[in-house]
Amino acid sequence: MSAGIPVGLVGVTGYAGMELARILSGHDSMELVRVTSRSDAGKKLSDIYPFLLDMPLGKLEITMPDVEDLAKSCKLVFLAVPHKTAMDIGGRLRDMGVKVVDLSADFRIRDREIYEQWYKVDHTREDLLPEAVYGLPEFYREKVRDAMIVANPGCYPTSAILALHPVLSEGVVETEGIVIDSKSGTSGAGRGAKVGTLFCEVHDSFKAYGLTTHRHTPEIEQELGVAAGESMTVSFNTHLLPIDRGILSTTYTNLKPGVSPQHVRTLFEKAYGNERWVRVFPEGSLPETRWVRGTMFCDIGFVVDQRTGRLIIVSAIDNLCRGASGQAVANANLMLGLDIEKGLEMAPFMP
Amino acid sequence: MSAGIPVGLVGVTGYAGMELARILSGHDSMELVRVTSRSDAGKKLSDIYPFLLDMPLGKLEITMPDVEDLAKSCKLVFLAVPHKTAMDIGGRLRDMGVKVVDLSADFRIRDREIYEQWYKVDHTREDLLPEAVYGLPEFYREKVRDAMIVANPGCYPTSAILALHPVLSEGVVETEGIVIDSKSGTSGAGRGAKVGTLFCEVHDSFKAYGLTTHRHTPEIEQELGVAAGESMTVSFNTHLLPIDRGILSTTYTNLKPGVSPQHVRTLFEKAYGNERWVRVFPEGSLPETRWVRGTMFCDIGFVVDQRTGRLIIVSAIDNLCRGASGQAVANANLMLGLDIEKGLEMAPFMP
Amino acid sequence: MSAGIPVGLVGVTGYAGMELARILSGHDSMELVRVTSRSDAGKKLSDIYPFLLDMPLGKLEITMPDVEDLAKSCKLVFLAVPHKTAMDIGGRLRDMGVKVVDLSADFRIRDREIYEQWYKVDHTREDLLPEAVYGLPEFYREKVRDAMIVANPGCYPTSAILALHPVLSEGVVETEGIVIDSKSGTSGAGRGAKVGTLFCEVHDSFKAYGLTTHRHTPEIEQELGVAAGESMTVSFNTHLLPIDRGILSTTYTNLKPGVSPQHVRTLFEKAYGNERWVRVFPEGSLPETRWVRGTMFCDIGFVVDQRTGRLIIVSAIDNLCRGASGQAVANANLMLGLDIEKGLEMAPFMP
Amino acid sequence: MSAGIPVGLVGVTGYAGMELARILSGHDSMELVRVTSRSDAGKKLSDIYPFLLDMPLGKLEITMPDVEDLAKSCKLVFLAVPHKTAMDIGGRLRDMGVKVVDLSADFRIRDREIYEQWYKVDHTREDLLPEAVYGLPEFYREKVRDAMIVANPGCYPTSAILALHPVLSEGVVETEGIVIDSKSGTSGAGRGAKVGTLFCEVHDSFKAYGLTTHRHTPEIEQELGVAAGESMTVSFNTHLLPIDRGILSTTYTNLKPGVSPQHVRTLFEKAYGNERWVRVFPEGSLPETRWVRGTMFCDIGFVVDQRTGRLIIVSAIDNLCRGASGQAVANANLMLGLDIEKGLEMAPFMP
Repeated sequence: MSAGIPVGLVGVTGYAGMELARILSGHDSMELVRVTSRSDAGKKLSDIYPFLLDMPLGKLEITMPDVEDLAKSCKLVFLAVPHKTAMDIGGRLRDMGVKVVDLSADFRIRDREIYEQWYKVDHTREDLLPEAVYGLPEFYREKVRDAMIVANPGCYPTSAILALHPVLSEGVVETEGIVIDSKSGTSGAGRGAKVGTLFCEVHDSFKAYGLTTHRHTPEIEQELGVAAGESMTVSFNTHLLPIDRGILSTTYTNLKPGVSPQHVRTLFEKAYGNERWVRVFPEGSLPETRWVRGTMFCDIGFVVDQRTGRLIIVSAIDNLCRGASGQAVANANLMLGLDIEKGLEMAPFMP
Repeated sequence: MSAGIPVGLVGVTGYAGMELARILSGHDSMELVRVTSRSDAGKKLSDIYPFLLDMPLGKLEITMPDVEDLAKSCKLVFLAVPHKTAMDIGGRLRDMGVKVVDLSADFRIRDREIYEQWYKVDHTREDLLPEAVYGLPEFYREKVRDAMIVANPGCYPTSAILALHPVLSEGVVETEGIVIDSKSGTSGAGRGAKVGTLFCEVHDSFKAYGLTTHRHTPEIEQELGVAAGESMTVSFNTHLLPIDRGILSTTYTNLKPGVSPQHVRTLFEKAYGNERWVRVFPEGSLPETRWVRGTMFCDIGFVVDQRTGRLIIVSAIDNLCRGASGQAVANANLMLGLDIEKGLEMAPFMP
Repeated sequence: MSAGIPVGLVGVTGYAGMELARILSGHDSMELVRVTSRSDAGKKLSDIYPFLLDMPLGKLEITMPDVEDLAKSCKLVFLAVPHKTAMDIGGRLRDMGVKVVDLSADFRIRDREIYEQWYKVDHTREDLLPEAVYGLPEFYREKVRDAMIVANPGCYPTSAILALHPVLSEGVVETEGIVIDSKSGTSGAGRGAKVGTLFCEVHDSFKAYGLTTHRHTPEIEQELGVAAGESMTVSFNTHLLPIDRGILSTTYTNLKPGVSPQHVRTLFEKAYGNERWVRVFPEGSLPETRWVRGTMFCDIGFVVDQRTGRLIIVSAIDNLCRGASGQAVANANLMLGLDIEKGLEMAPFMP
Repeated sequence: MSAGIPVGLVGVTGYAGMELARILSGHDSMELVRVTSRSDAGKKLSDIYPFLLDMPLGKLEITMPDVEDLAKSCKLVFLAVPHKTAMDIGGRLRDMGVKVVDLSADFRIRDREIYEQWYKVDHTREDLLPEAVYGLPEFYREKVRDAMIVANPGCYPTSAILALHPVLSEGVVETEGIVIDSKSGTSGAGRGAKVGTLFCEVHDSFKAYGLTTHRHTPEIEQELGVAAGESMTVSFNTHLLPIDRGILSTTYTNLKPGVSPQHVRTLFEKAYGNERWVRVFPEGSLPETRWVRGTMFCDIGFVVDQRTGRLIIVSAIDNLCRGASGQAVANANLMLGLDIEKGLEMAPFMP
């Protein structure tokens, strides 16, 4: 793990930061040389993450976030900080010529007004929106290679866009009336100390939250709009699962008359047949979150319901790996001229 | 628990049987005098359920199912056996003048052909279908009082019908295009020894199953059709949660133009304002399965999505209590002339 | 729930407070008329605990803690606040003639010095220590009836003392060399917002904590000393389980030479044969936390290991019910002249 | 992953088999060319393990176990079958000159009589006991390199022996009076369809099992006896955790007079300072099962209790990786002349 390309991580104490540490500890062409945290500066990484004890990465000292220092030390910086903070730090790093993979939402929405309407803050780096690339490798791989700023996709959008893209871009489902019913593991709710995510509040229970108002909605609509070639409105709704990792989205669409299940399968296979990380399940079987745990896989299964004329698509990802830090490493690999799979070759973690 | 009305239970070894034992151990007007199981006959109930140790009910001996003996000993019998077996035993008991609460699906579907099409078996007691009452107390309370056979509703249908009945019967949502996305705890999958429901296969994971083909579909469509006054087709789909108990259904409907959220609220309050067991959540809050745990409550919350014109209803029940054995006891209470709440006055079990 | 004896609860927002609310909502001789919380004053109880929605208790308004008001309104007050705060409020209430059940440790340790050494605070109400009664009903039932202040036992001590009392008081095990290896569900860690008890930190994991230093140690040693008739030192160690409720303690003792397993059984049966809430398991079976969930039961099983000369005792309780609020209600029942079982007649919650 | 040394696996359908498949799918010097299962022969591996879909290993066809075929195709065979079956297949393979890593207990106990007494079967290959090597790499690494048969250690023994070996071999604790209180995740109970390991029977609960009678006892005593240089008897007892993976053992010993905590630390560091896979925790911190998840680490922490004169050692491993299949791969690496860490370089899986 020595002598890789030096990279940094701003915001190491959340679950996305933890997952980046896990992945990069086994990446032999990239070396994490800076990890920052306002609350834990001065400690070794293994002090806050004992799972890194006796591993080289565990010895790295956590520092205060310092843009100058990051720019001097790193070729690329991952940002795992809240939106708004990210646009500030990310913008300054990019100004200094440092590549940036931003895990926040700040550079995902191309239209500043839509961003400001959903996120309720001003966008102060509108100048960078045109060059920021939406880092979903299946559709933007080539652009990512040349990007200085990559907006790493949200977890829910990754599961929803990969599920719907093939059938929307081929026009076999109605663009109206789509329902995306998503369920996420609790790591998606962050690592802040809140009563609502205490063990005894989440364990052995299940709930819906943020119905109709989740901030990933405009991101999903933006990318589905690109696929469909027209402006899209979807009903996107989220639920909290008592599991650590994993998102499963059940997506309801109206199939256009005369489209056969076989044709739908052909379209999925055409879209993803050569994609290492999207697995289209055979007829009769459906994804489960455990089968993608710890990996970049997006598993997709579908059923055509003849009674109601619906195509129902089920997609599953690991929200921390494919939905955040793993995808960030894939993007960094591309931006640094490395093989996209570097450091991400792990088999799913079962059971 | 002494000297209550004598009742019996056929099929005590599953989760519905276990839950009936839990509830009846605290019921002071009904006394469980027969519990049967082919596999465990001869044992005391506390031998298979140590939670009943040192409780009077724990001393009851499990017997082989014997219709004559049940008829002689019991005024009412609960059937917690698979469909097909239930119609046979239930029919014979009813022929002998014993009241029956059947937790299987055998008497739920009024149309024999629909039953046979979904359940793939012949219905041998079609003669009893006209008199069997669908035991959802909110809508059939009076009929249950006079019934000899009550078809205890399915768990998913209970959550779906209570959610949709008020808005369908008042005609404020379209009957077309309804999606019911349901998620159930693992006790709903039964207590049979199967690899698929082992702890390590379910824990920390989530999956969809039985998409478009779940046998509760015709039951839901039948009762929603009664509410709407027209034949209904819905898209009903199910998922497995890594929790013991609880069903949460997220139901998507198209609101008719001009119907305000306030009006929807009025309709729910009109329907359930006097119903002890249906709680309509205030605006801004939504049900969670933990808040109904161990009880008869069906919690209902809703959101109107102005962007998509949808009314989204979230309903939560305990699948074992409201969705099976608790509801069975409520029906038995009615059939035996007792207060419907007898033995069911428990507060939700939190956390 | 109307017109019972008026009681109050100081500190309603933690898990002990939540459990008291659950139990008292079904208690028909005691009425909760005051619930206090500094952080949630002004809200209705159902605002913070939606599981109480539409139940009479849910309508109760939370108030700021006010000793004068409590004294005027209540015959008895439960204290579910941290140690030190409890001795202050509890002492003032007792001075005003109000009965107090204190769920903290402040009045449990009879020796002020030992208290101060383990809890690192001064005891300002040493005057009340002689009259405070340790509220373990099996051993102090009669004293509790006449008490003005009851020190409600800790959760771990309840499981440990009930396990060891019969064999220590009869002198069949050595007083030296006892190891109590205890494991507790996460509700025992409280409802404060801390990273360490977030779902993703606890779920699917297990750890030891507080080895050799847990503050329940002096309480255990005090009561075992009473049983043994001599000063006791034990090795008491604790672990955190990824479950909501439940404590299971595995206790290792050295059996004195010549004591047979049959004799040990006789002693347990003599001690607890007439105790409704202590269940001695038959040979060959052992307690599990699920079998006592939601109840006052302490389940006890044991094994004699001929190879090592050890008697190993396994005891299980529900840490919130028997280990805190249920036991508090039992004590309050006694202090108010009610049947000790009032409001506590529930069957274990399975699964 | 192509063109590695060909190896086989007998018994792929259990959790140890599943874990071997996970690890070997990323091993680039060993190639799994045969996987057998009586029940699933004829299927592709990804048919039973969808997590392997679209991975090269997923395409491997499951065959019936056939010793001749295995001997022809493989240089080394892993046995993940029950004891007794293993001694038969393993013996025949060894007779044909094939190297064997046996995950069962059949070759772990050097004394045939002790084996037969605890396992209640005859040992039919006593001739192989002298040459079989107990595959705990920290102590038998060199012997494993030359072995034809390696007895892969049990999961509990791995955690117990690594915890106690340094202090027993240096004679700083008494050999009498040792208590090993172990807790294991449910994957340790196997993948057979049994009611007792269904999700709803294990989830949100905790129990002791097999007190004083666990078959790993003689294995622990044998190896601790080697360390101590004298025959050992320990009290070893086991509990079932509602987690997928992980064992945590809390071990109680009596420290000899005058031995300081610093000296104990020195001994652990001397024993494991150069061992990549044993991590000795700094003072004040203790292992948790999540910090070793998916890895070969055995994490060890300890506390000296001055009040009772005890040294308490806490050790944690992943029962499937370090406690079974990962250790098997480490042994296979040694036997095949590969670097011991090949295929096992993963960081712990958090959260």
